[in-house]
Amino acid sequence: MKNKKRLKIEDLGEFGFISRFSSGFTRMLPPGVLGIGDDCAVLPWKGQKKLLVTTDLLIDGVHFLGGRISPLNLGYKSLAVNLSDMAAMGGRPGWAFLSIAIPPGTEISWLDEFFRGWRQLARRTGVHLLGGDTTGSRNGLVINVVILGEADGRHIRYRSSARPGDIVAVTGNLGDSEGGLRLILKNIPDNKLKPEERYLVKRHYRPRPHLEEGQFLAGQPEVRAMMDVSDGIDSDLRRIMERSDCGVRIFLEQLPVSSALKKCSQKYGWNLEEVAAAGGEDYCLLLTVAPEKFAGLAEKYFRRFKRPLPAIGQVTAEPGVLRYFKNQVQVSLGKSGFDHFR
Amino acid sequence: MKNKKRLKIEDLGEFGFISRFSSGFTRMLPPGVLGIGDDCAVLPWKGQKKLLVTTDLLIDGVHFLGGRISPLNLGYKSLAVNLSDMAAMGGRPGWAFLSIAIPPGTEISWLDEFFRGWRQLARRTGVHLLGGDTTGSRNGLVINVVILGEADGRHIRYRSSARPGDIVAVTGNLGDSEGGLRLILKNIPDNKLKPEERYLVKRHYRPRPHLEEGQFLAGQPEVRAMMDVSDGIDSDLRRIMERSDCGVRIFLEQLPVSSALKKCSQKYGWNLEEVAAAGGEDYCLLLTVAPEKFAGLAEKYFRRFKRPLPAIGQVTAEPGVLRYFKNQVQVSLGKSGFDHFR
Repeated sequence: MKNKKRLKIEDLGEFGFISRFSSGFTRMLPPGVLGIGDDCAVLPWKGQKKLLVTTDLLIDGVHFLGGRISPLNLGYKSLAVNLSDMAAMGGRPGWAFLSIAIPPGTEISWLDEFFRGWRQLARRTGVHLLGGDTTGSRNGLVINVVILGEADGRHIRYRSSARPGDIVAVTGNLGDSEGGLRLILKNIPDNKLKPEERYLVKRHYRPRPHLEEGQFLAGQPEVRAMMDVSDGIDSDLRRIMERSDCGVRIFLEQLPVSSALKKCSQKYGWNLEEVAAAGGEDYCLLLTVAPEKFAGLAEKYFRRFKRPLPAIGQVTAEPGVLRYFKNQVQVSLGKSGFDHFR
Repeated sequence: MKNKKRLKIEDLGEFGFISRFSSGFTRMLPPGVLGIGDDCAVLPWKGQKKLLVTTDLLIDGVHFLGGRISPLNLGYKSLAVNLSDMAAMGGRPGWAFLSIAIPPGTEISWLDEFFRGWRQLARRTGVHLLGGDTTGSRNGLVINVVILGEADGRHIRYRSSARPGDIVAVTGNLGDSEGGLRLILKNIPDNKLKPEERYLVKRHYRPRPHLEEGQFLAGQPEVRAMMDVSDGIDSDLRRIMERSDCGVRIFLEQLPVSSALKKCSQKYGWNLEEVAAAGGEDYCLLLTVAPEKFAGLAEKYFRRFKRPLPAIGQVTAEPGVLRYFKNQVQVSLGKSGFDHFR
């Protein structure tokens, strides 16, 4: 007789976990309320205004390396990753709540720096810290951030609105943050970093939430689905595909990559396209756009931000199928990067 | 030359930490917004309606013993302690966000039970789970809960409104939860627990947030300051004293205690008054009431809840001074309970 295996959290994974436990909660929501399944929850506020809420839990050793990242950067980044979720739906952040579990022995000067980093970004984005929770930790540092923001209900963009034929675009270079992380893990001393390496490390530690871009794009009727790039487009696109019941085709040669990432990929033998497609934490925006309106949108976007809005693929009618193409040939993302499709 | 000691988190403590870092954040708040310093933050909502927000971070080994508490009780209690903060200001909870970091090897059946416990209380209190975050943990379980609720702005009660002369009252028995915790730490097998012991253990694991009581009391103009009993009245009263710039006199013989706690205190040699005054996690409400209206309020309260509203002390004009009296004689709370004042 075989042993019946007991199902463990590893067997479900993050998304399996969410779908197992969220269904019981999303069924009974009142109309006008959006719960689990997008970058923020959406609640009625005043008239057309909606309240957006997002929260992220950051654990030492899982989301950051407490011994490596400077407290200044950690304070900054804890807020940045949450603001990125607000950007993803076109929201304007207003209020933050910070819960922090602090291991014994943590120096106050470390915490001063953490809050200095937080404040740098909070001031720039107009976010007020309204509360939270403070406690000891037996192990590493734990940080939970909650952001409340608002948006006009007509100008919120969801993951669920992509339609076959839409152009897929991103608002920033892909893979820089992953490149930075790879460099950090090489333990190169700070003063030995080349300028392009320093650039990538900075992109990993101090991502800029695309708030203005998100608000602008959410106000354009031709923008359909939107989310932020947190796990990497290979993973994030699957979230749009699930929620919009569609597929996506990505053209690898169109992925925007920085010259710094190109240089480092050559130097260290990284597969550039894999880093760009599978690397996470770039925190730019990923969106789909009505195809006939894309050129006009890219022009408006360029006028406003002085940067292009690169198209990287197209939404298809094949639910759940994500295909990659390189110079018209289909390829697949394997363990060692992209291979010819087998 | 002496070594200059570097200030550590232990040197500040939780409340020192909060006052060090909150001042920079509370200074610049817009009018109508209450940030750090009370059980919930308060934000403008629709007209007279205010939005209340509270969050609590729960860490294995600090706030609960992951190996001891059943997942059913942990799910229940994670929500309960947050709802208690909502009760403390007279709010009606509506929405919850749950972030959870799950150690590898956690069984799905454990999580099923956790969510069953959560749902039991969520249904009873009308709280919808709208989102959160799920992640792995290198060490123990981490839980962060956020509750959004609402209240009429005229019917919110703060920690800062106590006035000298006010009667101090509580809405429930004190010390039961601490008694339960002491029993749990004795590792008595479940089936060996006497009924009064089982009662205390249950009071520790399944505290009832006093939501109806909080809403009722916040609606009575004679109720001035209010908060929930989370750290024990000895600690919690100091929060009211700080915020209201007053002192408090407590009459120990008036502290309401259950017969179960009395029985167990005799059996195990606990100092009953110390357990009642210094034990935490009872999650009933602590309030101050205009003295000339107290009798009338207690009567209304009894008619509504069929329970008394015990007066336990009085607010004084001595800022920061908490005095205990036992049969008219002043006593002090020392390491081994209450002693004659020295």
